[in-house]
Amino acid sequence: MSEKDGIAPPAITNDQSISKIQKQRRKQPSTQELVDGILEHNKTALSRAITLVESTNPKHLKKANEIIEKCLPHANASIRIGITGVPGVGKSTFIEAFGKHLTKLGKKVAVLAVDPSSSVTKGSILGDKTRMEELVKDANAFIRPSPSGESLGGVARKTRETIILCEAAGFDTIIIETVGVGQSETAVHSMVDFFLLLKLAGAGDQLQGIKRGIIEMADAIVINKADGDNVKRAKIARTEFKRALHLFPAKDSGWQPKVTTCSAIEGEGIDAIWDMILDYMKTAKTQGFFEHKRKEQNKFWLLQTIDERLKSMFYQDPTIKEQLAAMLQTIQNDQISPFAAAQKLLALYNN
Amino acid sequence: MSEKDGIAPPAITNDQSISKIQKQRRKQPSTQELVDGILEHNKTALSRAITLVESTNPKHLKKANEIIEKCLPHANASIRIGITGVPGVGKSTFIEAFGKHLTKLGKKVAVLAVDPSSSVTKGSILGDKTRMEELVKDANAFIRPSPSGESLGGVARKTRETIILCEAAGFDTIIIETVGVGQSETAVHSMVDFFLLLKLAGAGDQLQGIKRGIIEMADAIVINKADGDNVKRAKIARTEFKRALHLFPAKDSGWQPKVTTCSAIEGEGIDAIWDMILDYMKTAKTQGFFEHKRKEQNKFWLLQTIDERLKSMFYQDPTIKEQLAAMLQTIQNDQISPFAAAQKLLALYNN
Repeated sequence: MSEKDGIAPPAITNDQSISKIQKQRRKQPSTQELVDGILEHNKTALSRAITLVESTNPKHLKKANEIIEKCLPHANASIRIGITGVPGVGKSTFIEAFGKHLTKLGKKVAVLAVDPSSSVTKGSILGDKTRMEELVKDANAFIRPSPSGESLGGVARKTRETIILCEAAGFDTIIIETVGVGQSETAVHSMVDFFLLLKLAGAGDQLQGIKRGIIEMADAIVINKADGDNVKRAKIARTEFKRALHLFPAKDSGWQPKVTTCSAIEGEGIDAIWDMILDYMKTAKTQGFFEHKRKEQNKFWLLQTIDERLKSMFYQDPTIKEQLAAMLQTIQNDQISPFAAAQKLLALYNN
Repeated sequence: MSEKDGIAPPAITNDQSISKIQKQRRKQPSTQELVDGILEHNKTALSRAITLVESTNPKHLKKANEIIEKCLPHANASIRIGITGVPGVGKSTFIEAFGKHLTKLGKKVAVLAVDPSSSVTKGSILGDKTRMEELVKDANAFIRPSPSGESLGGVARKTRETIILCEAAGFDTIIIETVGVGQSETAVHSMVDFFLLLKLAGAGDQLQGIKRGIIEMADAIVINKADGDNVKRAKIARTEFKRALHLFPAKDSGWQPKVTTCSAIEGEGIDAIWDMILDYMKTAKTQGFFEHKRKEQNKFWLLQTIDERLKSMFYQDPTIKEQLAAMLQTIQNDQISPFAAAQKLLALYNN
């Protein structure tokens, strides 16, 4: 296998063990060899398998599916945590501090990213790995940048399948980072157990820049950079958010979203956030909501994928491509109702 | 035409003028006669046309489409207002007071409802017309109960096309009532210019019973029953909501949602609500947002209808019906990923 095949070399090679996989670097490992490597907790095998998942080559997709099927029975024993927040809120610093706290507790932490706006050339949100200098060197951590992909659906599939592989490779805490400015939070929310919104204390519109609806998805709001002169403002922001969250209806889980402050750069409040997540997990598992939510998420992704493909087939149809703009214009000119227009387009498609 | 054909007699017959249509009550009017009647602002013709729109008979659907196409150039010159709130909040009393205020100002008011949970037998939210005793007798008002329909999509289509007919029949203010407990608010929000959430003052969780996300859709929150002992509590609630809304990001329109109180039963604050809506309309029209939003809504309904039909065709397919449950079980048993399962089902469908 050469890089020309669309399979880049593993992004992270900080695994010190000399494995069969590494010796065969130039030779393409079989899917079984990759699965064996993953189940032996080998990071190189994991990276190679993820690269297959991320590939757009149909042959690789087939192999990726085989690997995932074999890994699935060994997955799921983890906590999946989504972390969002606008650029500048300190996500990388937070994840570095949070991840280090977890590895010190003996946890094995995988950090992934969902950022459909990024591409290899534009750079992804986790692309600059120097932003997590210490975590990247940690033997118990695994950091993977955002896969490139044209559609959010594509990126979401890749990330979700990467979670499976990471879990099979022994990672018990999966952190998924996303930028809180697009559609990607909904996707991430639908693949994690706990969704954390990072915020900064600021005057006036606290939610400025955050997409509508995100606050309702959050299981916790953490006000970062609560240090130095900022401590007082962070505490005021915490009070305001607590008051606002109180106005929202309770979540299906019965979990009342929490608001807390932290200073990722000084390591303050990080342990309390982890304790809060453990508390959530305890409640969710005791009440059966944890299992239920994961099952619902599986179903969501099945239906979501079908929905996306059906639409994609329709809108890629040459006749539809040709007629859609004209039909839309006819609607805007009040010559036909949107419903009658839809009927006409569907009739063209089905002929 | 007999009632056996699935066309019920018009629900509202408080039109005093003796028209050609009424004389031909037993004879089925042609689509052109119905269109002429609608454009002459005849309520009986309007009711009959709506009944065609609501029918599930394909012949009626064809006729309905013809009528809508001919009415479309005469529609759109109206204000469309959505009103939601949980049962008990006083929606009917509010609409009665609000509608009477508008007809006194010379407005022509149509009141429709979206309630997909209702059916003819279960009774619809506007079915009990005695709840709007005065408005129902008002020559400048037209009240139509929720159409029955199995799917929200079906009900939404019927309501949206009924709006077109009402506008062509000279109604300049369209009020659409919905119960704030299901998916229907999103549908109503996507067919109105202004979305009003009715609330009651209460201790603790102000949004109890309101579906998540509704508060973000509201252009105004009106705290009803601000009378007697309730005035003080209503004012406190208003302050709390104002504070909470301040935390939300600004709407695309730049409109900052308003919070106000009223007593529908005493007629207090109703005029101020209408003034607020006029203020909104002025801003929205000056800034071009009004037109833009209606165009976006047209596009939304085209894409939404296509999406629904594509899914409906897929899930009604006999092979898919047979395989879906088993495939879902395979996913829940961790034998296949949701994405690979979707691929398999789509391959079956396309064969």
